Amino acid sequence: MTKTSEISFNDRDIISIKDLTRDEIEYILDIALKMKKYHDDPTDLLKGKILATLFYEPSTRTRLSFTSAMLKLGGEVMGFSDPKASSAAKGENLSDSILCIESYCDIIVIRHKLEGSARLAAEVSKNPIINAGSGTQEHPTQALLDLLTIRNEFKSLDGLKIGMVGDLKYGRTVKSLSYALSLYDVELSFISPSMLSMRKEVLKDLDDAGIKYEEFSDLSSVLPSLDVIYATRIQKERFPDPADYEKVRGSYKINKEFLNNAKDSMILMHPLPRVDEIAFDVDKLPCSRYFIQPLNGVLIRMALLGLVLGKI
Amino acid sequence: MTKTSEISFNDRDIISIKDLTRDEIEYILDIALKMKKYHDDPTDLLKGKILATLFYEPSTRTRLSFTSAMLKLGGEVMGFSDPKASSAAKGENLSDSILCIESYCDIIVIRHKLEGSARLAAEVSKNPIINAGSGTQEHPTQALLDLLTIRNEFKSLDGLKIGMVGDLKYGRTVKSLSYALSLYDVELSFISPSMLSMRKEVLKDLDDAGIKYEEFSDLSSVLPSLDVIYATRIQKERFPDPADYEKVRGSYKINKEFLNNAKDSMILMHPLPRVDEIAFDVDKLPCSRYFIQPLNGVLIRMALLGLVLGKI
Amino acid sequence: MTKTSEISFNDRDIISIKDLTRDEIEYILDIALKMKKYHDDPTDLLKGKILATLFYEPSTRTRLSFTSAMLKLGGEVMGFSDPKASSAAKGENLSDSILCIESYCDIIVIRHKLEGSARLAAEVSKNPIINAGSGTQEHPTQALLDLLTIRNEFKSLDGLKIGMVGDLKYGRTVKSLSYALSLYDVELSFISPSMLSMRKEVLKDLDDAGIKYEEFSDLSSVLPSLDVIYATRIQKERFPDPADYEKVRGSYKINKEFLNNAKDSMILMHPLPRVDEIAFDVDKLPCSRYFIQPLNGVLIRMALLGLVLGKI
Repeated sequence: MTKTSEISFNDRDIISIKDLTRDEIEYILDIALKMKKYHDDPTDLLKGKILATLFYEPSTRTRLSFTSAMLKLGGEVMGFSDPKASSAAKGENLSDSILCIESYCDIIVIRHKLEGSARLAAEVSKNPIINAGSGTQEHPTQALLDLLTIRNEFKSLDGLKIGMVGDLKYGRTVKSLSYALSLYDVELSFISPSMLSMRKEVLKDLDDAGIKYEEFSDLSSVLPSLDVIYATRIQKERFPDPADYEKVRGSYKINKEFLNNAKDSMILMHPLPRVDEIAFDVDKLPCSRYFIQPLNGVLIRMALLGLVLGKI
Repeated sequence: MTKTSEISFNDRDIISIKDLTRDEIEYILDIALKMKKYHDDPTDLLKGKILATLFYEPSTRTRLSFTSAMLKLGGEVMGFSDPKASSAAKGENLSDSILCIESYCDIIVIRHKLEGSARLAAEVSKNPIINAGSGTQEHPTQALLDLLTIRNEFKSLDGLKIGMVGDLKYGRTVKSLSYALSLYDVELSFISPSMLSMRKEVLKDLDDAGIKYEEFSDLSSVLPSLDVIYATRIQKERFPDPADYEKVRGSYKINKEFLNNAKDSMILMHPLPRVDEIAFDVDKLPCSRYFIQPLNGVLIRMALLGLVLGKI
Repeated sequence: MTKTSEISFNDRDIISIKDLTRDEIEYILDIALKMKKYHDDPTDLLKGKILATLFYEPSTRTRLSFTSAMLKLGGEVMGFSDPKASSAAKGENLSDSILCIESYCDIIVIRHKLEGSARLAAEVSKNPIINAGSGTQEHPTQALLDLLTIRNEFKSLDGLKIGMVGDLKYGRTVKSLSYALSLYDVELSFISPSMLSMRKEVLKDLDDAGIKYEEFSDLSSVLPSLDVIYATRIQKERFPDPADYEKVRGSYKINKEFLNNAKDSMILMHPLPRVDEIAFDVDKLPCSRYFIQPLNGVLIRMALLGLVLGKI
């Protein structure tokens, strides 16, 4: 039973998916669905509120998604997307930047390459902070939008078999999603080249949570049993030897023919940007969900902005 | 006769000036003039609508002009002006970027260095797309603001003799303007060094349209007969030999004394930025229109945003 | 007596603190205090007005502060923060840029590394211009927020002894603040390494204004007599020999223990960003004001935007 009467997000920071209970996650997803009406017909709910988007790492997608969410709720947005144009270039530490910028706004969204950066921001600031990606571990709003996409499809997350494919070592989306799914009764398959396999500490946490998972190097053998494939981009720059990269890359290229062996009900997700791990002939197939995920991202971020600012 | 009853821009893409009929162009110019009241006293006509400005090539002027137009109509704006801060830097193709960003906004303005980029965006997106400059050929909103500037002066475009000076080979403004003028009864003079002359395919299209044009390397001989001079910047980087550049540059430097031979009614235009092809002593002359063009640019973009979003 | 009945800022440029009388400054500070209510509960006072922020030098803090001020008054903001993405990169001069951009907006805020740049902008533009930092001399809105911070503390600026520490040669904040304080009955102490001492022309102007000042190389001896310490960042890149920098830097590092010799009522200010000239153990001391200055900055900028646009 979801005890929503006890759930409050007013003035809370959203730093890690691990800070949220299953009930809280379900509550956020429920609110996100209700945001669809404001997405289609914007409101003045957050009129007079200012969001600062501090992107110390480049990101079009996540930055514009938060911006869209805030604008559709009637709020205003300011910030930067290029750390070279910020005070960090003059040697300022993150804590000082946050203590200064918090005077200018009501809520802060931050992306930073260092682990723990968003947590630090939350500790020093009186404003609520939402983590838009920190280090290689945390990307809670991406995990939430991924959950929403899956739940929209299968009504419940329980009982599903979900495969994550590609760069499981460096990608933060797969880690945040794994932690989120560890609150559900799911079975996980991690498919990657051995040098990009899921980190041991994440696997240990899944063990502790009693989550069933298996690791594979080949996608085709596990494909027929999966309800969800979550593909990710393999980053060329991680490979010391370009020949290794080419070999690995080819083995996870998903195309229309390859998907013939998948379940009819299977859905294919990707956090984007893709390079060539999913062929263009897949885009129009009924299983493709990666161009629906961005809309769900706006809905999740609308829900969080409204909740944390105490207006929902 | 302008059959405005048959003209509709609701949900249309504005990709090339060649997609527009003369009646449609005249209709846009008429609407632009009506936008002056909203320029001076902004409205809420587009409240709740979001414009995404995707500038894969740097441009202060055009980006801020579209931004101003949207804000004055009560809409909101987001986007990027630095491709390095976008997902393109991670290897994402334009089509994927558009399919993602369209979830965040209601209309997209795009500038991109590749020919056909705006057309591609329009083909994949369910949102209307406005081309803010693609490749070396298309810049339809610039052509429309240039037409508005000329029509404001002479009441009608028919019967005018218009000279374009400078870099006719690489500049996209002169090509878009030439195609726009090909719908009118005008006479064109193309004045440029031979290595920067108007491209053969454009001349062929003008021939097909029955437009009278002549090519010159020297401006002074044709000057006395012109109603409009449209000067453009000669880009140093196009010249392999700096000495060639210096020689050429000098020959098209327009100053107050030089203009003594022009008609009294002649107007001098420039898409800006200028470097030194027009001397400062010309700025205050009655013929100068290049600091009025930017206002006309806002009016044209207000008209297009309102029309395409179905609010005018 | 403050003759506020004669003071008008409607349509005025704010270029240099030297352009303002003491009565005008006091009036701006009074209005800034009244802006606190709109800071906490934003208004629609500037609805329909557009601010263009033209930052030819990078600055997160000042740009976002002006942005916040405009948004909280109900106005809109557009601009650029990266000169490489602007037309200046195509060789356009500042005057042309201003004459173009003024068609897009109602008021312009400019930061530029050249002395006189903001003054030039004001001379060519029909829009009011606010200087957000030009060259090494002028930063009037910073001086005003510094005055507000001091006045809030001591009720009056008269009778105070104020020490400025660090880079007095290149820093524009200390110069603007010195000129502002020269309108009051204050005593100034300039503490810096000799190679970074206050410029002779500023000292001469203070002499002409009858202001008492002394120069020191050591902070500790003058510390006990100061009501205000205004610390600034020493920029490593100014020192040809890194060893000189290390020596100098150490001598102005303010920490908790060092401040034991200060007056109980002394306040410590810094324009930020700091690098390490103030130790972290000072941040929570009752004397620290550098994280309150940013809020005062928003209030000052709200006052100026409202005044100059004729809405206050």
